[in-house]
Amino acid sequence: MNTSATQKMDIQKVESSRIGQVDFDNLTFGSTFSDHMFECDYKDGAWQNPTIRPYGNLSISPGAKVFHYGQAVFEGMKAYKDDQGKIWLFRPEENFERINKSSKRMAIPEFPHDLFFEALTTLVKMDKEWVKSGLGNSLYIRPFVMATQVGVSASPSTDYKFMILTAPAQAYYTGDVKVIVADHYSRSANGGVGAAKAAGNYGAQFYPTNLAREKGFQQVIWTDDSEHKYLEEAGTMNVFFRINDTLLTAPVSDRILDGVTRKSVIDLAKHNNIDVDVRPVLVSELVEAAKNGSLKEIFGAGTAAVISPVSAFSHKDVVYELTKPEDSFSTRFKKELMDIQHNIGEDPYGWRFEVL
Amino acid sequence: MNTSATQKMDIQKVESSRIGQVDFDNLTFGSTFSDHMFECDYKDGAWQNPTIRPYGNLSISPGAKVFHYGQAVFEGMKAYKDDQGKIWLFRPEENFERINKSSKRMAIPEFPHDLFFEALTTLVKMDKEWVKSGLGNSLYIRPFVMATQVGVSASPSTDYKFMILTAPAQAYYTGDVKVIVADHYSRSANGGVGAAKAAGNYGAQFYPTNLAREKGFQQVIWTDDSEHKYLEEAGTMNVFFRINDTLLTAPVSDRILDGVTRKSVIDLAKHNNIDVDVRPVLVSELVEAAKNGSLKEIFGAGTAAVISPVSAFSHKDVVYELTKPEDSFSTRFKKELMDIQHNIGEDPYGWRFEVL
Ligand SMILES: Cc1ncc(COP(=O)(O)O)c(C=O)c1O
Ligand SMILES: Cc1ncc(COP(=O)(O)O)c(C=O)c1O
Repeated sequence: MNTSATQKMDIQKVESSRIGQVDFDNLTFGSTFSDHMFECDYKDGAWQNPTIRPYGNLSISPGAKVFHYGQAVFEGMKAYKDDQGKIWLFRPEENFERINKSSKRMAIPEFPHDLFFEALTTLVKMDKEWVKSGLGNSLYIRPFVMATQVGVSASPSTDYKFMILTAPAQAYYTGDVKVIVADHYSRSANGGVGAAKAAGNYGAQFYPTNLAREKGFQQVIWTDDSEHKYLEEAGTMNVFFRINDTLLTAPVSDRILDGVTRKSVIDLAKHNNIDVDVRPVLVSELVEAAKNGSLKEIFGAGTAAVISPVSAFSHKDVVYELTKPEDSFSTRFKKELMDIQHNIGEDPYGWRFEVL
Repeated sequence: MNTSATQKMDIQKVESSRIGQVDFDNLTFGSTFSDHMFECDYKDGAWQNPTIRPYGNLSISPGAKVFHYGQAVFEGMKAYKDDQGKIWLFRPEENFERINKSSKRMAIPEFPHDLFFEALTTLVKMDKEWVKSGLGNSLYIRPFVMATQVGVSASPSTDYKFMILTAPAQAYYTGDVKVIVADHYSRSANGGVGAAKAAGNYGAQFYPTNLAREKGFQQVIWTDDSEHKYLEEAGTMNVFFRINDTLLTAPVSDRILDGVTRKSVIDLAKHNNIDVDVRPVLVSELVEAAKNGSLKEIFGAGTAAVISPVSAFSHKDVVYELTKPEDSFSTRFKKELMDIQHNIGEDPYGWRFEVL
């Protein structure tokens, strides 16, 4: 596998931008793409022909392994524009490391560090007009890798395509979220691929999430698949619980994604002298705390929504409502994170990364 | 969802067949496709525009959900040509039912029965020269469905593409197979998608299977993810154990695929007055039986390889060798199944389905 020096990038610019046709005040998350995309192929044991070209269709065989065996991984990150017009990323090294960790678990060759950053920054710079300033606005960045070898036999692909798409985004969730605590379906197995951002993990959640929606809940809080005893993730976010003034969250494992927002929240909390208890959290504790009034907050943490407060949870058909406290942790963390991301507040952690 | 009457199929024939360029004595499984393929799109809540056209590339957005969320399912079946030139399928209703069961679990709309069979039989008839007679030869048939809506947000697609590809095939495995009994990695979770032929299940197995290969084993026998105590599947096959003269196999569950070959083997065994015990099979029983000499055979069962005898298994780094007995069950089942499939023997079960 070649993860060495970057090759010269081929850059093909759009003849005219599509930006004039976009209504930036009414964006559906992840469905409008900016002018350019990055593409790089793996064949003969090396990543080849890094190219930035106008966003557009791929010509691909229906026999490509990605369609049949889900050999694909992705990342999600954001670029933010501050009021001075500077563009920032948030902890991009974490996403770089994680995509390669995901790739490894999915038997996909790792992508070279320098080429990842060159592609990312060149692409964002080329489409800088697509990054809008203002709190909550961002350019969502989607690096991903897919298996492109043609062959319907279940073995790892010899060929891959690494791509980066970008899509302008406003705030992801509107309003509070009601969740159901899973007690039948699960998202990941011990020794499985839950800790990887593997494509198939997400499609597998759609059906149980639909069932939750039919009952009036937006997301599922996933529990361990063996006994549904431990609280693990909320939809596609990590999940935090505040009991009295202590913040609880599950340790990462091979079932739980090591979220960048999660680890940032843990650091923010410690910096704010909030007690953080990273340990397996029992469903029974949550129910008990809801009943005795010590459960103050539940919130999801992830790049798309940043922090997503949960207003109610259901467990075995009993619904427990939550009232956001005055001194809400989720509100505080969301503000502190967004201030750092948008270059409004101090960044004592060194999380911001300047693109332009 | 529209699963009602079939629409008129659009048929576009190749101008000249590629069949002359194919070396039918040296086929790599699943990598040479016949002249035509079937394609049908789901949009606005209905399956539309069923089309048979020359095998060739798709033009598809890199933002299509299949690439990001693995919302995709597939089937695997075979057509056989007998010595009179007649073409047969094996229990195709099972595959039809299973693809819709898989689709349901993956939040994909079901495909209509009559259109499935019309597409399948029309396609096989058009490419009938690609089905070669002779025991072990077949046309492998790959129906599959992928999410085509453009959007990088993790929610079910509104649009899908159902396709059928076909690929001429010789025998799948050559020689006996050595396997490792999983005691760290797993293929499926309780309440997960293991019982579905969901694309992501397969990509997820590549890395642990690579690790097994590096140690000189071809496949992994998957165990339950909670305790690695129960024997569940062998690679992408169901698995049988013969202890003394009893045949053991795990019951199907939400972790185990309901294989057509598996259920056929169970029926063949019963018909042959062999004791079949469908119950959870312990790893410890297997090891014990290997030690005391009562373990006579292990074999995988699946469409691609039909029956795949296992010549050795490794558990916690101890290797147990097997010698195929004179009265091998696996040899007998393989012969009986292939005789039915190729229209050589009687078919008291009504499993053969005449295409042409
Ligand atoms: C399953 C899952 N958990 C948690 C997260 C949160 O991770 P991050 O904060 O890095 O976005 C994600 C991705 O967004 C995810 O897909
Ligand atoms: C995981 C898994 N188990 C078992 C089988 C065997 O099923 P069948 O006999 O229907 O081919 C398959 C598919 O071939 C499979 O993918």
